[in-house]
Amino acid sequence: MGPHPAVAAIRLAVRRVLHDVLTHHCAQDRGEAPLVLVACSGGADSMALASALAFEAPKLGVRAGGVTIDHGLQEGSDLRAAEVALRLRALKLDPVDLVSVEVGRVGGPEAAARDARYAALDATADRHGASAILLGHTRDDQAETVLLGLARGSGIRSLSGMAAATGTNGRYRRPFLDVDRQTARTACLIQALPVWDDPHNTDPAYTRSRLRHEGLPALEKCLGKGVVEALARTAQLSRDDADALDGWAADAEATVLDEAGTLDVAGLFALPAAVRRRVLRRAVIAAGSPAGSLFARHIEEVDRLITAWRGQGAINLPGRVGVRRQGGRLVIRQG
Amino acid sequence: MGPHPAVAAIRLAVRRVLHDVLTHHCAQDRGEAPLVLVACSGGADSMALASALAFEAPKLGVRAGGVTIDHGLQEGSDLRAAEVALRLRALKLDPVDLVSVEVGRVGGPEAAARDARYAALDATADRHGASAILLGHTRDDQAETVLLGLARGSGIRSLSGMAAATGTNGRYRRPFLDVDRQTARTACLIQALPVWDDPHNTDPAYTRSRLRHEGLPALEKCLGKGVVEALARTAQLSRDDADALDGWAADAEATVLDEAGTLDVAGLFALPAAVRRRVLRRAVIAAGSPAGSLFARHIEEVDRLITAWRGQGAINLPGRVGVRRQGGRLVIRQG
Repeated sequence: MGPHPAVAAIRLAVRRVLHDVLTHHCAQDRGEAPLVLVACSGGADSMALASALAFEAPKLGVRAGGVTIDHGLQEGSDLRAAEVALRLRALKLDPVDLVSVEVGRVGGPEAAARDARYAALDATADRHGASAILLGHTRDDQAETVLLGLARGSGIRSLSGMAAATGTNGRYRRPFLDVDRQTARTACLIQALPVWDDPHNTDPAYTRSRLRHEGLPALEKCLGKGVVEALARTAQLSRDDADALDGWAADAEATVLDEAGTLDVAGLFALPAAVRRRVLRRAVIAAGSPAGSLFARHIEEVDRLITAWRGQGAINLPGRVGVRRQGGRLVIRQG
Repeated sequence: MGPHPAVAAIRLAVRRVLHDVLTHHCAQDRGEAPLVLVACSGGADSMALASALAFEAPKLGVRAGGVTIDHGLQEGSDLRAAEVALRLRALKLDPVDLVSVEVGRVGGPEAAARDARYAALDATADRHGASAILLGHTRDDQAETVLLGLARGSGIRSLSGMAAATGTNGRYRRPFLDVDRQTARTACLIQALPVWDDPHNTDPAYTRSRLRHEGLPALEKCLGKGVVEALARTAQLSRDDADALDGWAADAEATVLDEAGTLDVAGLFALPAAVRRRVLRRAVIAAGSPAGSLFARHIEEVDRLITAWRGQGAINLPGRVGVRRQGGRLVIRQG
């Protein structure tokens, strides 16, 4: 008799990623067995991930370790982290690191905690020479991320959610992007793994938590149970589409850009709107406008210098970047 | 003192479309004044649209008429439609037609009613030689359409909502896609226009109605009041992106297709995934697979003949279309 379907599902997801890590590792012709770390909060998703890594890694000749982060944001978080480290060691993961971080305030509480966490994970992976760090994001997390991107209304890149591999050389891996949260929970239950529910996950002060407990259930009630899967599939399709269009824009830019850094209006006009606006966005960012402050309406205004020219003056953009049309060319300058 | 902001907003939206219709009309060098019809259910959106058309058209030398459809689906719908026609005549629209249709059952109640309605609108426009038919879809309708597309999870084309112009020569126009429903309601109230609330709009048996009254309000509670606007902007950006990628796929298809109708695997492999999958979809539909039965997973399976080739057999698709790889080419055949 094989394992419970939930346990089989999480193991299969991890096995696929380990195969991929091994392929990359061997291609680099490195002699020793690769080390893969799991980043574990002690919650059901990352405990399930840790258990699957502990089970699969030895069979593939991969060393498996773990790391848990103490963000120091709640009373007793140090004891909690120590307990998680013990649980990881009980799974026979080795090494297991507990890293305490200081969370700053830049960009709000969620962003600051995330920045501190990834810096600590990077440092831990470097210290141990790890080939990959597994993250426990599930298909439900992906669906929430897509809805958060949708609320920005800034186009398909923001609909593309989290990638399966991110970071330098794709060191961060998300094996559970096609696994739903309930499967991870069930796998913990079946394997009698104790899990810890982060109170932040149910705190309505957090947008993501409100989405999880109110927004998504309401959408499922209207649109059916397939919504989470549809959102996750939208993420993948949008990511591929955005990549293709970004590549096209990079190629197109080379054909309209001269040595002085100005852009040919006739060449831009001939491009599809979606490609032209991406070329304009690239050029404006290259001139010094901060990507995060640049909205669709800014680019639309620049676009009207090309598609609705009636002698407009210079357009001022964030980062003191100005764009004006001059003799059939767009001049984009900071200062 | 100018008109109330809501009235000004609906008039501006209609004026922009009439300008565009006039430009097309003059380009065709047609002598007589163009006729523009409004399709009116008697609800707030289309009554606001009718009032704005009645106000703006004479100033631009455009003739304004109206049409209302009796779907015959509710007791007394004939009397209701007659009342709407009277209201349109009271706005000095001329001609005003009342058209009774027979709603079939193909594709479910919503689709069948829509098919009957558009057939009647087309016939009415043809009968009067109308240049355009205005439809009252608002930004809120657009947001609902995007969410319905999102639930399909079939990519960015289904996120692109309703176009501002559709039908033969773009005869159907939607001036209110950037106007919210509340503005249309307010404009009716200010102008003392009686409106009729279609009971279907609040009937929870209809998916769209559930979205309107439960899904979208829940999302707004989680993500803020800007959700409707963000969804509408997503529609526009997705539409432009999908158009650009479809154009790329059409060009790419020409480079990989030979006279026998087979596709070059090496050429396909060199394309970005988003473009390659569109080329495959085009080819499979051209071979006879019905577009509506062809899902992302079908195309992914065909794609694996290219990206994950391990000697798979033929792949069977809806419409008895088979795809197999043979000697470096994909052979796509019905039968």
